[in-house]
Amino acid sequence: MPELRKDPVIGRWVIISTERGKRPMDYRPNNFERIAGEICPFCPGNEGLTPPEVLSYRRDGSSPNAPGWDLRVVPNKFPALMIEGGLNRQGEGIFDKMNGVGAHEVIIETPKHDAAFSSLPEKDIENILWSFHDRVLDLKKDRRFKYILIFKNHGALAGATIDHPHSQLIALPIVPKQVREEIDGCKTYFSFKERCIYCDIIKQESDSGIRVIAENPSFLAISPYASRFPFETWILPKNHEAYFESSQKHEYENLARMMKDILVRMDLALGNPPYNLIIQTSPFHELVSDFYHWHIEIMPKLTNVAGFEWGTAFYINPTLPEEAAKFMRDIVA
Amino acid sequence: MPELRKDPVIGRWVIISTERGKRPMDYRPNNFERIAGEICPFCPGNEGLTPPEVLSYRRDGSSPNAPGWDLRVVPNKFPALMIEGGLNRQGEGIFDKMNGVGAHEVIIETPKHDAAFSSLPEKDIENILWSFHDRVLDLKKDRRFKYILIFKNHGALAGATIDHPHSQLIALPIVPKQVREEIDGCKTYFSFKERCIYCDIIKQESDSGIRVIAENPSFLAISPYASRFPFETWILPKNHEAYFESSQKHEYENLARMMKDILVRMDLALGNPPYNLIIQTSPFHELVSDFYHWHIEIMPKLTNVAGFEWGTAFYINPTLPEEAAKFMRDIVA
Repeated sequence: MPELRKDPVIGRWVIISTERGKRPMDYRPNNFERIAGEICPFCPGNEGLTPPEVLSYRRDGSSPNAPGWDLRVVPNKFPALMIEGGLNRQGEGIFDKMNGVGAHEVIIETPKHDAAFSSLPEKDIENILWSFHDRVLDLKKDRRFKYILIFKNHGALAGATIDHPHSQLIALPIVPKQVREEIDGCKTYFSFKERCIYCDIIKQESDSGIRVIAENPSFLAISPYASRFPFETWILPKNHEAYFESSQKHEYENLARMMKDILVRMDLALGNPPYNLIIQTSPFHELVSDFYHWHIEIMPKLTNVAGFEWGTAFYINPTLPEEAAKFMRDIVA
Repeated sequence: MPELRKDPVIGRWVIISTERGKRPMDYRPNNFERIAGEICPFCPGNEGLTPPEVLSYRRDGSSPNAPGWDLRVVPNKFPALMIEGGLNRQGEGIFDKMNGVGAHEVIIETPKHDAAFSSLPEKDIENILWSFHDRVLDLKKDRRFKYILIFKNHGALAGATIDHPHSQLIALPIVPKQVREEIDGCKTYFSFKERCIYCDIIKQESDSGIRVIAENPSFLAISPYASRFPFETWILPKNHEAYFESSQKHEYENLARMMKDILVRMDLALGNPPYNLIIQTSPFHELVSDFYHWHIEIMPKLTNVAGFEWGTAFYINPTLPEEAAKFMRDIVA
């Protein structure tokens, strides 16, 4: 059973995921090599290589866990957290831990092994967004879970271990410290201004235009003012909404269009960079609707995070956000 | 002039370092290649390729900025922050910024280009520690600075751009958010227990022994209970002290011995991994002596930080700290 352990000084929880079973020898350099010709567990025909699906979108009357799907969601075969059991919070002297309970699922985004997310038709991307929506609604019913992070690692340097296009979600029994800080920041601003801080950011960015990359009827894409990374990009819904899963149909359509637009621009601007994409949404069962505002963050992996950043969580970004935005804005697809 | 910009939601400052001058085209994949046969600016005889030294340890009566040194400290030629000027705090609509004022220096640890830090004699490592001490005392006199981070990036994957052994320091006009949170955590514990939390951790770890890697008269090296990364290692002074620069001579001797011991073990255990090493010490001019406890954190770079971590600052560590500690403890040098 994986464990959640808390750093006693800073209060940060970590997942100690023994199920992933990395032994010391696994880290030696020559164990990093990929096995060529390995069978892809995410390709049609290999459904038996994944745990049974929890959701699939199928064109015809094909059977679960067999070919005929456009999209499948399966539990991660090597989950960071385990779906069964109680939290069993306990101390260990000065330290605190609980069982590593949670859901860890993989969204297999397309049957096509070699398709890049950015090359998928908008309709397929919209379906991926609907699968996120459907899984969040389902997992929200489990009262043990307090937060879901949906994320996508594209490329080995960004942490992807399987090439076949996929994203992941992790449902957690606690609200991560960084998410809590973000919510608290929004709450403080709201108590001062009685407005959502993200709505104010959207207004200012839209008016000035200098950090705007693209805009459509429902979404604004910007280089954030205090970008941690070069070409960090946020996609913000223009309509105030705290929960990703509460978006309307036309919003998912416009989001699919915007995601494809941004990722195509990024590919052109930076030569198909590896990237991490995350959806920042509200914790479950908390009253945050007035002041939190869900959004997407995309972080191309262009620089190595080094000692200074680990030591301080203080990032050095060598590219002006305004310059990154202009470059992305002016790129012709 | 570089800028410090504040994320308006979470309150995190970032350095937008235009002096480093990364243009969008610099990130395209083929621009990552190293220039072979490039002249090393840190080698003896090439002193003219660095800014003039601010400190050097020399054997004979050799002149500054000429060969004959054992160790040199120079300003970074491409500094993330600029040493001159005032902070000039100002708003930009909803956003906040100030001038990127600070010191960014490079400690050239040895004249030998090919020496690994872990292969240096203990006496040389001790001298490196003394150079940290001397620079901190000097920079502390500048009342604009509130915090210094000393760090070492070893290997390209850990962010090093020059092979010649070196470490760096950055003096900042603000206390980074993560450091502030650590100090606050220590303060809260102290107000509850009237004891230093790190002293209590040292006591518990030393008694149980399961996460101890090595111990000498002045230092304890452990795998921390809630390690973020596999083989993360902390070196803690056994004697309570808030400031790195207030250590005694025998402590620097024992620290040099411990650092070499740990890095040799890490090289043997993990095949010369890239790593980041940071010294966590107290902010200047704050009354934290009772409850803060300086220490060193070493993070070998074995896994890629991915979307989940960026989205939540919630780390997944696939190796049990107890297993990492045992492996490091049992390695025979």
